[in-house]
Amino acid sequence: MSEEPRPAGDIGKQRIEALSDGIYAIALTLLVLELKLPPLAEHATNADLGRALSDLLPKILSWVLSFWVMAILWLSQVRIYHLVHSLSHTMVRLELLQLACVSLMPFSTALVGEHGNLPAGAAVYAGNMLAVAVTGALRTRELLHQPHVHAKPIDDTLRRALNRRAYGLPACALTAFVLAFFVPGWNMLAMAGMVLMPPLRRA
Amino acid sequence: MSEEPRPAGDIGKQRIEALSDGIYAIALTLLVLELKLPPLAEHATNADLGRALSDLLPKILSWVLSFWVMAILWLSQVRIYHLVHSLSHTMVRLELLQLACVSLMPFSTALVGEHGNLPAGAAVYAGNMLAVAVTGALRTRELLHQPHVHAKPIDDTLRRALNRRAYGLPACALTAFVLAFFVPGWNMLAMAGMVLMPPLRRA
Amino acid sequence: MSEEPRPAGDIGKQRIEALSDGIYAIALTLLVLELKLPPLAEHATNADLGRALSDLLPKILSWVLSFWVMAILWLSQVRIYHLVHSLSHTMVRLELLQLACVSLMPFSTALVGEHGNLPAGAAVYAGNMLAVAVTGALRTRELLHQPHVHAKPIDDTLRRALNRRAYGLPACALTAFVLAFFVPGWNMLAMAGMVLMPPLRRA
Amino acid sequence: MSEEPRPAGDIGKQRIEALSDGIYAIALTLLVLELKLPPLAEHATNADLGRALSDLLPKILSWVLSFWVMAILWLSQVRIYHLVHSLSHTMVRLELLQLACVSLMPFSTALVGEHGNLPAGAAVYAGNMLAVAVTGALRTRELLHQPHVHAKPIDDTLRRALNRRAYGLPACALTAFVLAFFVPGWNMLAMAGMVLMPPLRRA
Repeated sequence: MSEEPRPAGDIGKQRIEALSDGIYAIALTLLVLELKLPPLAEHATNADLGRALSDLLPKILSWVLSFWVMAILWLSQVRIYHLVHSLSHTMVRLELLQLACVSLMPFSTALVGEHGNLPAGAAVYAGNMLAVAVTGALRTRELLHQPHVHAKPIDDTLRRALNRRAYGLPACALTAFVLAFFVPGWNMLAMAGMVLMPPLRRA
Repeated sequence: MSEEPRPAGDIGKQRIEALSDGIYAIALTLLVLELKLPPLAEHATNADLGRALSDLLPKILSWVLSFWVMAILWLSQVRIYHLVHSLSHTMVRLELLQLACVSLMPFSTALVGEHGNLPAGAAVYAGNMLAVAVTGALRTRELLHQPHVHAKPIDDTLRRALNRRAYGLPACALTAFVLAFFVPGWNMLAMAGMVLMPPLRRA
Repeated sequence: MSEEPRPAGDIGKQRIEALSDGIYAIALTLLVLELKLPPLAEHATNADLGRALSDLLPKILSWVLSFWVMAILWLSQVRIYHLVHSLSHTMVRLELLQLACVSLMPFSTALVGEHGNLPAGAAVYAGNMLAVAVTGALRTRELLHQPHVHAKPIDDTLRRALNRRAYGLPACALTAFVLAFFVPGWNMLAMAGMVLMPPLRRA
Repeated sequence: MSEEPRPAGDIGKQRIEALSDGIYAIALTLLVLELKLPPLAEHATNADLGRALSDLLPKILSWVLSFWVMAILWLSQVRIYHLVHSLSHTMVRLELLQLACVSLMPFSTALVGEHGNLPAGAAVYAGNMLAVAVTGALRTRELLHQPHVHAKPIDDTLRRALNRRAYGLPACALTAFVLAFFVPGWNMLAMAGMVLMPPLRRA
């Protein structure tokens, strides 16, 4: 929309925001497809149904965790894109890479809901989170090094807050990934830091 | 888009509107995935197909009810967001919480279509509606307490209409939830109030 | 966005356009989920795969027809909404009703792909198209009767073109619906009129 | 949005961009639905899960290739639509045709992930890519022939870059299609040119 000249390769942020909103919306909604009752007998009683529902509990927990983490990632992206008016070629590539990892989340959420007690299941899930967090950190790094895309100057307090988040999220995810091989399932507690980290209020 | 200073933590409403529209669109469309004919024999007759279609009737009814309620919720959100220019940090959190509940609706619609005659099935469905209605009511409450996000002053008539809706919807859903344990299936009639409640014409 | 006063109950068109685009996008994409190969044997040959693919042909034909019709419906809606700046309460209701019918299309497309040779299957599909066409016609009728929502005056040539389309689409769909009971499968040829009808170039 | 008169049949680009973003977002996310573990035994060991995950490798590779190609197609479309302010009737038709082919990608990705070693599987996948590339090339051709839709004049350097891409992508896809009948699976390497082709930095 803006008519100011842009360096070759930059693109406006509107379309990539629209694609992101679409992919997050779908990935968030597809998470629920994993919550499926096994077929019950024709004349199932209320107790049968209650038991089937409580058997879903691990899947419900992994749904809650994934929804929460993805909502926080989306919110970070909203705040970060508020700081820029367009995206450099590298930022677009990193964003598309992150969206690929986000679209994988329903797969790894299903995996951890079914096999979260096995190292391979827990590691795939934490590895997916790690990939999302690392691409996010690289995007923040690129953003801070490209002052020509900034919508307004970024002061030092905000720069520090951005860096803290950019390195804090991968650190939590890496911890969860390593612990997956030793205490699968419980390793997810390492993600708590990700969820509890103070949001980017200033952005 | 607006350049006026915003309190720390507030975000513009465009992106959250886009995410909501996406999640509602997907959840509304996924409802239909439950409408699936059982596989018929190779040379099924027209009568076989007619019978299979009429066996779908309970699922079709729960699809209609869910579509209707979700469309009304979406419309309320449109009217409410028309009153504000940005969202406080708390409103964003409540919105994401509500979207999580909305994205669960295809799951509980499937459940009630299959087991709506059992208390557990009817209660999960009504409980999901209750969660959506309560988060909506909290959002309205927060909105009325944050005059700095209002796009224009909210007069007393509108304030009363907003409050009536905010407390009326959870009341209907709570009634449906309690009745689920006594008259499962029929308890859904309590949702009729939700559907028939006069819309927020003034917003 | 516009600040002119609106009659109570009217809403801006942006959000309903966004919801529509979402629902059409999803319904169009979900159509493809029906195109599924049956599981082949472990060491299937190229001839086995070719046979399985050609068995998909009826489903592919119904996918093409549904995609085409839905794309045309979406395009009509784009052209019609270009004529207005906001929607009356009744238009919003009709739009949501039409979106419900649109979201049913993947279900009836699947049905006709599997059982299009039976009257019940062909009738459900044509009936779904009929419901979409009738709600569209009612929306056009309401639009022409609500001059206060028009973005610019609607001249007589355009009015006639709108009316011709509004009544032509339901007429084709009704013909297909009636023929479903006599020549199931072939009745779909009556939809050709829908697809070949000249588009609303002037809108 | 713009109020300048448009030739009959042209439409603004906002809605078609929104529909495209939706369809790309959904098709990109549905690709993941194919990544599904076979049900494992009740007390599966970590080695069982590891084996099941590594059996997914061909599907993961086809997911990566499809995501990458579709992300590049989306990005081309973003850059191309940046050059125009509205779309001619023919461009809209070509865009909808291309979106139909894009929405087929999850089907052909699933097919190639399962049967990429058979000519029929590899040819369907490459054929789908070819259809997407050809409709894209026709769209670019139409765009260059319709100066009245250009947002600003298109200079010769850009025109050459657009033409190079428009003919380069179908050439790669056609090569992959032909090779599918001789070296199924390996034929996909011909797509590498598509992925490595320099992006439209100037657009």
